[in-house]
Amino acid sequence: MWHARRRVGCVHSRAVRERGNTTKRHRLHPAQVVVSGFALTILGGTALLMLPNAKVGPGGASFLEALFTATSAVCVTGLTVVDTAVYWTPFGQIVILLLIQIGGFGIMSFASVVGLAIARKLSLRSRITAAAETKSVGLEDVKGLVFGVVRISLAIELTVAVVLALRFMLGYDEPVGRAIWLGVFHSVSSFNNAGFALFSDNLMGYATDAWICLPICAAVILGGLGFPVIVQLTRQLRTRPFSWSIRTWTMNTRIVLAGTIALLVLGTVYITAVEWSNPNTLGPLDWSGKLLAGFFQAVQTRTAGFNSVDIGQLDSASLLGMDILMLVGGGPAGTAGGIKITTFAVLFFILWTEVRGQVAVNVFGKRLSRAVHREAITIVLLAVGVIIAATAALMLMTDISMDALLFETISAFATVGLSTGITAGLPWEGQIILILLMFIGRLGPITFASAIALRERRSTYEYPKERPIIG
Amino acid sequence: MWHARRRVGCVHSRAVRERGNTTKRHRLHPAQVVVSGFALTILGGTALLMLPNAKVGPGGASFLEALFTATSAVCVTGLTVVDTAVYWTPFGQIVILLLIQIGGFGIMSFASVVGLAIARKLSLRSRITAAAETKSVGLEDVKGLVFGVVRISLAIELTVAVVLALRFMLGYDEPVGRAIWLGVFHSVSSFNNAGFALFSDNLMGYATDAWICLPICAAVILGGLGFPVIVQLTRQLRTRPFSWSIRTWTMNTRIVLAGTIALLVLGTVYITAVEWSNPNTLGPLDWSGKLLAGFFQAVQTRTAGFNSVDIGQLDSASLLGMDILMLVGGGPAGTAGGIKITTFAVLFFILWTEVRGQVAVNVFGKRLSRAVHREAITIVLLAVGVIIAATAALMLMTDISMDALLFETISAFATVGLSTGITAGLPWEGQIILILLMFIGRLGPITFASAIALRERRSTYEYPKERPIIG
Ligand SMILES: [K+]
Ligand SMILES: [K+]
Repeated sequence: MWHARRRVGCVHSRAVRERGNTTKRHRLHPAQVVVSGFALTILGGTALLMLPNAKVGPGGASFLEALFTATSAVCVTGLTVVDTAVYWTPFGQIVILLLIQIGGFGIMSFASVVGLAIARKLSLRSRITAAAETKSVGLEDVKGLVFGVVRISLAIELTVAVVLALRFMLGYDEPVGRAIWLGVFHSVSSFNNAGFALFSDNLMGYATDAWICLPICAAVILGGLGFPVIVQLTRQLRTRPFSWSIRTWTMNTRIVLAGTIALLVLGTVYITAVEWSNPNTLGPLDWSGKLLAGFFQAVQTRTAGFNSVDIGQLDSASLLGMDILMLVGGGPAGTAGGIKITTFAVLFFILWTEVRGQVAVNVFGKRLSRAVHREAITIVLLAVGVIIAATAALMLMTDISMDALLFETISAFATVGLSTGITAGLPWEGQIILILLMFIGRLGPITFASAIALRERRSTYEYPKERPIIG
Repeated sequence: MWHARRRVGCVHSRAVRERGNTTKRHRLHPAQVVVSGFALTILGGTALLMLPNAKVGPGGASFLEALFTATSAVCVTGLTVVDTAVYWTPFGQIVILLLIQIGGFGIMSFASVVGLAIARKLSLRSRITAAAETKSVGLEDVKGLVFGVVRISLAIELTVAVVLALRFMLGYDEPVGRAIWLGVFHSVSSFNNAGFALFSDNLMGYATDAWICLPICAAVILGGLGFPVIVQLTRQLRTRPFSWSIRTWTMNTRIVLAGTIALLVLGTVYITAVEWSNPNTLGPLDWSGKLLAGFFQAVQTRTAGFNSVDIGQLDSASLLGMDILMLVGGGPAGTAGGIKITTFAVLFFILWTEVRGQVAVNVFGKRLSRAVHREAITIVLLAVGVIIAATAALMLMTDISMDALLFETISAFATVGLSTGITAGLPWEGQIILILLMFIGRLGPITFASAIALRERRSTYEYPKERPIIG
């Protein structure tokens, strides 16, 4: 379904005037719908969180506190300016949970619809004679996709919630009601890569408890693979569980799975090695605890944002490595943020092709579409530009060190939610910047990438070719 | 001469087997010659600097001090572990000056030869019938280029040296001999973008002296434009000084000139604005002094590395902005370092094309060769990878802040030579890393880019096309 087929012709055929379906020009672009939807949901959540019964104690939360929390929840980031565990009432926490779920459904559905539209468009382009009306993604397709997203999300969330609830009940003697609530909240927060927790020290109290950490990691990883990959894996397991036909998987599935494994292994090794004897993080743990906590943090850094060690105590070399993991993020059309594994992989394969001196960029036996090169570069440049600009702005506002500020901006932009602990102490202008980063980071790459990929390009003539000196 | 003409055909014609001039395979690749030449020059310089009469006082410099200084001089970087002004005798300073001049000649000549070879190869590719022997760059071409480089370098250096010597003599009452020596040393150090100075505080004593700062800036900018641009400008001035035919200039010249102006303006505005009221940098100066010092630092950051303000006292936001200026660097085939303006411009134009939704990447009325896209991405990815790895390694070795370490590694890799003052205090392993960074940064991009561009690519068949989801 997300498999874009071979396109006919080279650039010369593409350069001739391509006509869009001009009759649909007046309709609202899906990206506009989604951006507006996210903004309205955030505003609604802000209003609810400002209600006096959302906050513990007298009075209500301030507008900035509520706006920051609502944005962080809807954009499934997890950065907080107040302590989720003690600042909000159960009502407030339920609002946060609902905002997370709406945000997760929203981004998965939107990205999946966009992915389908791009695949349709490309596949149509190769079948020149196809009727124009099959090009657009109809309401039926959207309904089907949203239904699929909701069904798969709920199934995974329910499973993980049951495991977590049992563990909280049996391992920590929590009463049934509270155990279920803890299970549901952290399961939803995990699958949607939100990183909100109901403990003041996030999950640091469970750093060595594999029964808590591993189910959460599983939900995080599955959510981060993205809907198209989950669908393909589910179909594979349902139709031919014992004869895996990896060669038939889409390039997207293979890149995301290979990239996820590579990033998890590299991230675990790097973080565990750097922090091995840090007395404030992994130092006091035995070797299995170090491995579990290192793996947990490698998983959470892309993009969930839970933490079982104190991020503020990590070596700055760990923070730098985590900056990269956060920026790369997870798979597209899922709940993960960042520039996405596929975008990073495209750049990596271009590099690899040049190093090996090959003509075409080949990935797993398929040639990588050349239009994708430019899209990937564009997304990465814009992301890096936004992050550097935001970091510079925060540097001008505060005296906080560069590693903490850079970590914070990447965490916000890639909707990770990890922090060295500076979020609440930032001036209000700085918190506004983080709010904008979360929103732009959540919706920017997908809307921009889809706008690029779906746009009708016109070019009446070609200029003669020339090249400058590189390097 | 560096004008690569329109290439025939699209990827399908390029994919058919291209045959190299296999009879030349056994000859030493020019990159090997240059890398070996640089390494031998550095070792020779190290030996000379270890002589007792190179160092003031009893005994000689240590191997690491001499190696670091020789590498910094040959790679025209300017980072120092000892105070050039007081640690070395006049003999030692002459050795440094010669190393700078050899390094400058070497890199300009090599890059120019490579640029000519690439242009020849591409132009040949479009004239299928041309005889194979015209393809290679002969000894005559190399001699002509080297002669041109030496002639232009000496002409500019002499002019600037005279102005500086006069100023030191008339403005600061230096004796004639010393004034000439100061003029020659700083002129050569400027045009070769080396940044070595004969004052313990670099040029901080001359922050408001336009007669010192502006001639140095002029030499730095000219050296940083690169030989091909200087040649084209010289030819323009000689043949038609009053009727500028910008449209006939090569894409390389136009990108380098436009990029240089843009970076100088943006850099001056940014640094001056951020530091305007910093009491330790521009604060005490009047507005013309602020502007002069801001402009001077914007010029020096790409890639010369002189400083007239205390880099260690700059706001971290200034350091971050200067990181970008340093990384971008100057024009190719000159004495500037970094990834080069052209490489950065290619990425920028790709971004711009995508934002505007155009089909081909057009630059100044020419279509940018598609092979260049991948070369530029590769160079940037490798540069960023090396810088991040080196920064992480230095973070593990020391407790120095990230902004100082990142600044130091970019400064070394881009052969800038600016420092917040941490160079001498780094452990010896850290100094070795900087030595490697200077060497890799000086020779890596040009050798790698030339290897990519000159390589014969073979591909027997094409895979079907596919694309993952981006963003
Ligand atoms: K998150
Ligand atoms: K330099």
